[in-house]
Amino acid sequence: MEFTATQIATLLNGKIEGDQNVTVSKFSKIEEGEKGSISFLANIKYTGYIYETKASIVLVNDTFTPDKPISCTLIKVPDAYQAITKLLTFYNQNKTEKSGIEKPSFIAESAKIGNDIYLGAFAYIGNKVRIGNNVKIYPHVYLGDNVTIDDNTVLYSGVKVYSDCVVGKNCIIHAGAVIGSDGFGFAPTEKGDYNKIPQIGNVIIGNSVEIGAGTTIDRATMGNTLIKDGVKLDNLIQIAHNVVIGEHTAIAAQTGIAGSTKIGKNCMIGGQVAIAGHIMIPDNVKVGAMAGVASTPKEGAILQGSPAMNYKDFYRASAVFKILPDLKRQLDSLTKKINAH
Amino acid sequence: MEFTATQIATLLNGKIEGDQNVTVSKFSKIEEGEKGSISFLANIKYTGYIYETKASIVLVNDTFTPDKPISCTLIKVPDAYQAITKLLTFYNQNKTEKSGIEKPSFIAESAKIGNDIYLGAFAYIGNKVRIGNNVKIYPHVYLGDNVTIDDNTVLYSGVKVYSDCVVGKNCIIHAGAVIGSDGFGFAPTEKGDYNKIPQIGNVIIGNSVEIGAGTTIDRATMGNTLIKDGVKLDNLIQIAHNVVIGEHTAIAAQTGIAGSTKIGKNCMIGGQVAIAGHIMIPDNVKVGAMAGVASTPKEGAILQGSPAMNYKDFYRASAVFKILPDLKRQLDSLTKKINAH
Amino acid sequence: MEFTATQIATLLNGKIEGDQNVTVSKFSKIEEGEKGSISFLANIKYTGYIYETKASIVLVNDTFTPDKPISCTLIKVPDAYQAITKLLTFYNQNKTEKSGIEKPSFIAESAKIGNDIYLGAFAYIGNKVRIGNNVKIYPHVYLGDNVTIDDNTVLYSGVKVYSDCVVGKNCIIHAGAVIGSDGFGFAPTEKGDYNKIPQIGNVIIGNSVEIGAGTTIDRATMGNTLIKDGVKLDNLIQIAHNVVIGEHTAIAAQTGIAGSTKIGKNCMIGGQVAIAGHIMIPDNVKVGAMAGVASTPKEGAILQGSPAMNYKDFYRASAVFKILPDLKRQLDSLTKKINAH
Repeated sequence: MEFTATQIATLLNGKIEGDQNVTVSKFSKIEEGEKGSISFLANIKYTGYIYETKASIVLVNDTFTPDKPISCTLIKVPDAYQAITKLLTFYNQNKTEKSGIEKPSFIAESAKIGNDIYLGAFAYIGNKVRIGNNVKIYPHVYLGDNVTIDDNTVLYSGVKVYSDCVVGKNCIIHAGAVIGSDGFGFAPTEKGDYNKIPQIGNVIIGNSVEIGAGTTIDRATMGNTLIKDGVKLDNLIQIAHNVVIGEHTAIAAQTGIAGSTKIGKNCMIGGQVAIAGHIMIPDNVKVGAMAGVASTPKEGAILQGSPAMNYKDFYRASAVFKILPDLKRQLDSLTKKINAH
Repeated sequence: MEFTATQIATLLNGKIEGDQNVTVSKFSKIEEGEKGSISFLANIKYTGYIYETKASIVLVNDTFTPDKPISCTLIKVPDAYQAITKLLTFYNQNKTEKSGIEKPSFIAESAKIGNDIYLGAFAYIGNKVRIGNNVKIYPHVYLGDNVTIDDNTVLYSGVKVYSDCVVGKNCIIHAGAVIGSDGFGFAPTEKGDYNKIPQIGNVIIGNSVEIGAGTTIDRATMGNTLIKDGVKLDNLIQIAHNVVIGEHTAIAAQTGIAGSTKIGKNCMIGGQVAIAGHIMIPDNVKVGAMAGVASTPKEGAILQGSPAMNYKDFYRASAVFKILPDLKRQLDSLTKKINAH
Repeated sequence: MEFTATQIATLLNGKIEGDQNVTVSKFSKIEEGEKGSISFLANIKYTGYIYETKASIVLVNDTFTPDKPISCTLIKVPDAYQAITKLLTFYNQNKTEKSGIEKPSFIAESAKIGNDIYLGAFAYIGNKVRIGNNVKIYPHVYLGDNVTIDDNTVLYSGVKVYSDCVVGKNCIIHAGAVIGSDGFGFAPTEKGDYNKIPQIGNVIIGNSVEIGAGTTIDRATMGNTLIKDGVKLDNLIQIAHNVVIGEHTAIAAQTGIAGSTKIGKNCMIGGQVAIAGHIMIPDNVKVGAMAGVASTPKEGAILQGSPAMNYKDFYRASAVFKILPDLKRQLDSLTKKINAH
């Protein structure tokens, strides 16, 4: 499908500068723009590309004024990033969507399934599972007994949800994610081996949660592991038993949260972070990539390093770390001088 | 099912303090206790909750004496943690267990399958696979040719076991774990690319091993990658080719062990640890979360940091790391003073 | 099958020292050698084992001359490591290979499938998928709509490839890997929650790429995430949206590459490395295990630490880090002395 600058500007309430009849049929990044594509400029670091891009249309913030000649057509909007998101969402909704029940699939007799669902081949729906309306379950998904999946949720291929877990509305869970595996709980015996502590709780996932590929969320020993509304988890994250993650907290890939830790709302946690067990992360905390958080920080803290500290302190200390051998030499020479004195 | 305090105390050989007729039908954590639930107090940090909990029964160590009024019924036992584990195990055994062979599943003609097994729909059993008695194989499990799974082992949904691998008795392998994928072995050529080194060994897993969701264990180049009896592996762990992990060693999530490293018995290894290849970790070593172990430590060592060192040394050095900019200023001012002198 | 020393020496153009009629039927590591096995000595660290090994034949570099009596037969070759690789490859090719289409499997009518393929039971082939010749697709593989898999590629059990992604010739993708899941892109709203940014690009994987078990590669927001020819990725790696990885770069397990970062050719990146988003890693860079790379290094750099620095600087600074408490004491005592002066 082709769209004119005028059509797009109308959809986005934007203002055209340039050829209003130019047409586009695809999206591109500004640095890879081709004729017939629409791009956007939101990050100031990429400004230089707007003078070279071959994209036919570029969405820009209405505060942007070019200081050199430009060959593309501009559409000015209050927030170019939100505008491109809106456009992509519109485009994506118009792609053909999966529907119907493919064969063979396994649906227990006691399962209850809503309207307008897609159920891929080789999907497995256990006893007493309840699935809402407009849910999409891709091939090779496993839903254990008593699982609940609420309306409009999408489970991509190979998602595994153990028995008794609950997933809310409008969630997206990516391929290979595992929800509800046993928490890592063992009681050491006098003989030096371990007795397994049965993990009889579950996982409850709120609404509008997105969970990345290969991420694992363990069920609670007792009670619930809780992933609250609007949480966004990237790929290959580990969430241990009885963890609670507050509303709209976002966590980047390969981070691990140890058992029983509670994370507040609107936190932003980088990749490869480790957070110890049995602690509390207050609301609005930011944790930089690779940080190790072993104790409870203050609300709104910005942390870096392992053990984690204020990020400015970390960067200042790291700058000195690099020159530690020089510092040691300086100190030793000074000591020698004094002692010789 | 409901149980009275008397029934539970009898099962656990405990002593009741309070109402012996009070009934419970579920478990709860002490800080989330509700009427009709049984909880436990094992960790002294949680003692405060026993005076507020709404749990009807709390298991406590027989050394515990309340110093304030308590509304719940106590059952005193020698070890509250072991008692609750026993109770949870008892409870878990009484849940309905899966059995029988669901359709469609794929079983090669040459496979040998024991008695009383559960085989979920869409499970795949390759040529000459041998499966013991009372094994549970959930949907979407893949067992390559010549795989052996011994008695009483449970493989959750989506476990993949490559050809020729062996899993012992009483093991539990969680969803998405991969056993026997090729080790990462490539011989650089003169042209700057790589020749793959065929990985023709296998993985042998002992008895009573538990393996977490998404954990990957590579097959040996030649010979065996060995996971010995009683080893407990958490989620998303990487075990490279030809690694050996000794009896009853426990490893937390997201840790990686590089090729040919041998780990002793009864080690405890934290989360996100990296252990280099071709080294030896002796028995009883403890490695803290996020440590990087690049050389062989002493038996019984307790390590932290990257590169790893004695954990006390690490914490002392970390305390100084934080104030390095102050130290530098102090040193520079001293140097100035001396030079001016 | 049994082979004599003469047969093997002929295949490898090697020179026999010892019994030319001795036979072997399997491979072994030199430290685990058994009678009837062939082993090799390439790494000088293992030289001691050649005097004790029970292997019947050992491949050695032709520069090797024993300085003690040896009981095994030697076959001397220019490069023992390449010779054993050649032998293992030869052995592996002679194992029975999978072929044919197992039932039940799901193949969309519009899919095009080449000759001589293996398609395992419960594999799922979506609409308009194109599969080349001699491709092996193990059970539980999922190929979304419009996926292309080129000749001679092997997808092990449970690989998931989202719609529109492309995999080249001669690739190997291990169990549980996920190709083409959504990039982690969300636009924060004024209300404090997030709008999902649709991820409408794809992943393009070149020829001769190997991807480890459980590794996840996200699709581009727009355009392509690119994994170029000859790249080798170990297990549980995270590759974010719009990343580019250059030819013949090898990356060890559990490393994460954040969004839009471009990595050059022939880089070697260790395990548990984190590389920040929107940076460039030039050709031939080496990054040590657990390093955190937050900015663009120089071509050919060898990095270690987090934040990453030249590896020699890192090891020198780490040596001083360990004794920081001593340094502080030394400085404090010096300060005291001066001030008292």
